[in-house]
Amino acid sequence: MNQRGLFITFEGTEGVGKSTQLANAASTLRSAGVDVLVTREPGGTPMAEAIRELLLAPRDEAVHETTELLLMFAARAQHLHTRILPALDRGQWVLCDRFTDATFAYQGGGRGVSSERIALLETLVQGSVRPDHVILLDAPVETGMARARNRGELDRFEQEDLAFFQRIRDTYRQRAADAPDRYQVIDANRPLEQVSSDVSGFFSRIAGI
Amino acid sequence: MNQRGLFITFEGTEGVGKSTQLANAASTLRSAGVDVLVTREPGGTPMAEAIRELLLAPRDEAVHETTELLLMFAARAQHLHTRILPALDRGQWVLCDRFTDATFAYQGGGRGVSSERIALLETLVQGSVRPDHVILLDAPVETGMARARNRGELDRFEQEDLAFFQRIRDTYRQRAADAPDRYQVIDANRPLEQVSSDVSGFFSRIAGI
Repeated sequence: MNQRGLFITFEGTEGVGKSTQLANAASTLRSAGVDVLVTREPGGTPMAEAIRELLLAPRDEAVHETTELLLMFAARAQHLHTRILPALDRGQWVLCDRFTDATFAYQGGGRGVSSERIALLETLVQGSVRPDHVILLDAPVETGMARARNRGELDRFEQEDLAFFQRIRDTYRQRAADAPDRYQVIDANRPLEQVSSDVSGFFSRIAGI
Repeated sequence: MNQRGLFITFEGTEGVGKSTQLANAASTLRSAGVDVLVTREPGGTPMAEAIRELLLAPRDEAVHETTELLLMFAARAQHLHTRILPALDRGQWVLCDRFTDATFAYQGGGRGVSSERIALLETLVQGSVRPDHVILLDAPVETGMARARNRGELDRFEQEDLAFFQRIRDTYRQRAADAPDRYQVIDANRPLEQVSSDVSGFFSRIAGI
């Protein structure tokens, strides 16, 4: 029987370089012979990606905060139970672009949903499953937003104002401060090669390279 | 200020005549001068209807029971908070084709999701809001399924077997037995005019006609 894989998530506000660093981490792990599954939230399965489309599409109808919260966890339930947990059981390491920390940050910090409501759904959907490590890429929100804007059209979340993203960053940092063993806070407001070097270094250490 | 309207739901297994009796009830109420909103679950707003499409579409990917449960409540949160509650506040009566009793019956009785999980989401989404009256149209599942099949192609739920629908019927009947003041159980295994007469009679009484 395979040893269970590690479940590692990448978090941060818009434009901090999550996708780039996730690819960097996957490459570091693969060169060490680790079998890696790269995935993202919301999404990760056809059904969950369809829910993601519903969530991100700009629309005339105001989306109630409870609707948004439940859609996030519906996508997560599908992704976790049909893709992430089976992969971990097979011994794969799972690198995921956003997970439940993003819900605490965006719906909680950003939209003001109580963290008790989020924690209740976290337990309902995940039981005791939590990421083994969370890589928090941290940068001033102005920096990241400028990068996100340069990528083109903004989705329903990216249309929010800077104060919304500041609350998200604050929530992420607070969660990291509350559980320093599980979070790696990496200063993403530096040249790419320095950020990449820190991320590679962390993954080399945990993979025992 | 208007008096708050009544919130009345229609429940039952496939093919028991919910839509017909809902139209019948709306007509009875309107002829008594009551302002009525007719709606349905899952659905009732463009966003909630989009979630309904996701739920009902037959698909290759197995939908995890927690995903299904959260999608149901996501659609309900949107419908309740953006359409039903504002209508009740304006003094309209709301007649809704299915509501949370259907979740207890289909996901709980049918799929075996624990009623504690459903009740937890019911409170998270609805707070203390419950229907003022539930009209349960009750008939042997064989009768209803034959009617549903005659209507054409079956959706993801209608493709389940008779035992699934028997558990749903049993759950509905048990919930009605547990709260007889709030549930009107109407024998739908009779000629249409008799069923309609019972439904009209009930609505005439509560509208004080």
